[in-house]
Amino acid sequence: MHASLKTRFAAELPAVETALARAVSEMPASVKPIAEHILQAGGKRLRPLLTVLFARLLGYREDDIYIPAAAMEMLHAATLLHDDVLDAASTRRGRQAAHMRFGIVPAVLAGDALLAQANALVAHCGDCRLSACFSEATVRTAAGEILEIAYQGRVDQGPEVYTQIITDKTAWLIRASCEMGALKAGAGEETLTHVRRYGFELGKAFQIVDDALDFAPSEKTGKPACGDLREGKLTPPLALYRESLSPAGRKDFDALFTSKEADAHAIEDIGARIRLAGFDAQTRALATHRLEEARAALFALPDAPERSVLEQMIAHVRDREN
Amino acid sequence: MHASLKTRFAAELPAVETALARAVSEMPASVKPIAEHILQAGGKRLRPLLTVLFARLLGYREDDIYIPAAAMEMLHAATLLHDDVLDAASTRRGRQAAHMRFGIVPAVLAGDALLAQANALVAHCGDCRLSACFSEATVRTAAGEILEIAYQGRVDQGPEVYTQIITDKTAWLIRASCEMGALKAGAGEETLTHVRRYGFELGKAFQIVDDALDFAPSEKTGKPACGDLREGKLTPPLALYRESLSPAGRKDFDALFTSKEADAHAIEDIGARIRLAGFDAQTRALATHRLEEARAALFALPDAPERSVLEQMIAHVRDREN
Repeated sequence: MHASLKTRFAAELPAVETALARAVSEMPASVKPIAEHILQAGGKRLRPLLTVLFARLLGYREDDIYIPAAAMEMLHAATLLHDDVLDAASTRRGRQAAHMRFGIVPAVLAGDALLAQANALVAHCGDCRLSACFSEATVRTAAGEILEIAYQGRVDQGPEVYTQIITDKTAWLIRASCEMGALKAGAGEETLTHVRRYGFELGKAFQIVDDALDFAPSEKTGKPACGDLREGKLTPPLALYRESLSPAGRKDFDALFTSKEADAHAIEDIGARIRLAGFDAQTRALATHRLEEARAALFALPDAPERSVLEQMIAHVRDREN
Repeated sequence: MHASLKTRFAAELPAVETALARAVSEMPASVKPIAEHILQAGGKRLRPLLTVLFARLLGYREDDIYIPAAAMEMLHAATLLHDDVLDAASTRRGRQAAHMRFGIVPAVLAGDALLAQANALVAHCGDCRLSACFSEATVRTAAGEILEIAYQGRVDQGPEVYTQIITDKTAWLIRASCEMGALKAGAGEETLTHVRRYGFELGKAFQIVDDALDFAPSEKTGKPACGDLREGKLTPPLALYRESLSPAGRKDFDALFTSKEADAHAIEDIGARIRLAGFDAQTRALATHRLEEARAALFALPDAPERSVLEQMIAHVRDREN
């Protein structure tokens, strides 16, 4: 991470954490421990930082910006709670997944409550445009996850479906995090267009890089490699690999990909081949165009100190290793 | 149902249905069929009617009232989607439950999307107090469900826990449905206090009567009797029955109640004993005090035609047979 992005992260983090802790402390007793568990799982607080940076870039100076910023992290945490239940994941960032510790039913309901509490925080900001932005992102995120599930274990997923999935399940929330800051700063429609574009393209690139990182060795990322292959998600590294195969090889791959219980050795073997052929690196390159668009949108905005931090965010998304 | 309540229901229903259909039509394609399935499962639209009635009672005449009204039904439907997954219910009002037809994962995510879409509708009303009211009800509903689950299969649930459960899981949403109409009508704080009190007490009474009806024959209610006993929920009819037992009988009951797989005959037998002893009728009587409070709150509000319809709503909740 570039030095001044790192410095800014460190400077903003305490206020974000305080706002999160305060929001959770106001939740009903039955959901509080679950909300704390997921929020203390070591998230990077990328989304709240975007909210704060855009607000400051556009001249907003009040401390209450940390409230909608915290709401974005809570929405993110709520989707993680549901995702982990739905993926039957047993761990999250190296810790026990919430549903393994508290039970599936409480974890789903705590996700609902966390989402609602985030909504309440945003509603109390007193500007309905914020609530509309927040709700739209929530609808889209859920829709993206459903689309992804509908295509799980299928090899007929074209690139346009992939784009739709990453746009909805990941990019909308990152876009909304940026927009929230701009709305709080009272930005006009033209400014908002650039802010949304930055967030949207950064978000898509973020997911593309994530999908490349899925094939990186687990020592680097801290999570098991090839998760997408095991879960039947035809991300770009897998689509590129599949296209590279002979008809016979492709038939074997398809059989493995669509089966529910693929052999661990076969999966490791495909992972190694993908790295050897550089399909993960090629995937990262797909993000470059998105990031150039994000940069162009950013440079249509005022030249304040936050602009260079947001530029470094682009480099961070491009280069990140975990 | 009293004639003029029935007439008003029939008069308002088409506009409620139109608003619901429009809201669902704007949802992403992947969630639409699931949202339609749950919303067409024959709900009584009690909550939207309350929103409309309170708005009209307090002088609001615009047609856009059907939008927040529809949002309350969507929130209710979203909680049903999650409840049915979490209870592993196979049917809902005689039809196949959504998760049986579409899968568990899409059903949970469609619940998230439906809730978010409802939030978006409310946010677009342009008054943040509506969003705050809506979010608070969502948080409380989830908290009530978690509390209920925490006490499932336990005989140490005192009456104050029962009150907390029904207040949170049921009454908050009904209270918010009433408040939403009053907020739209621009009601002041004193009026809002009465509106909330009506909704809160009506909502608690609604759930108490529901818990009595759980022991009614399934021909009457359209759902299997003794569901709460099977699910280990110590509702008033069961608490009254348990108190009536000798120490030995109570020991047997506790063993059955806390076991996960109770015998069907034993359950039917307890259901028959509860009806014979009139513990279900005694439970209904518990609702009476709540309904008197609701009536008192209602009569502090203006004497418009809707007031008598809302009075009949009290009688309807008291007397309903399904």
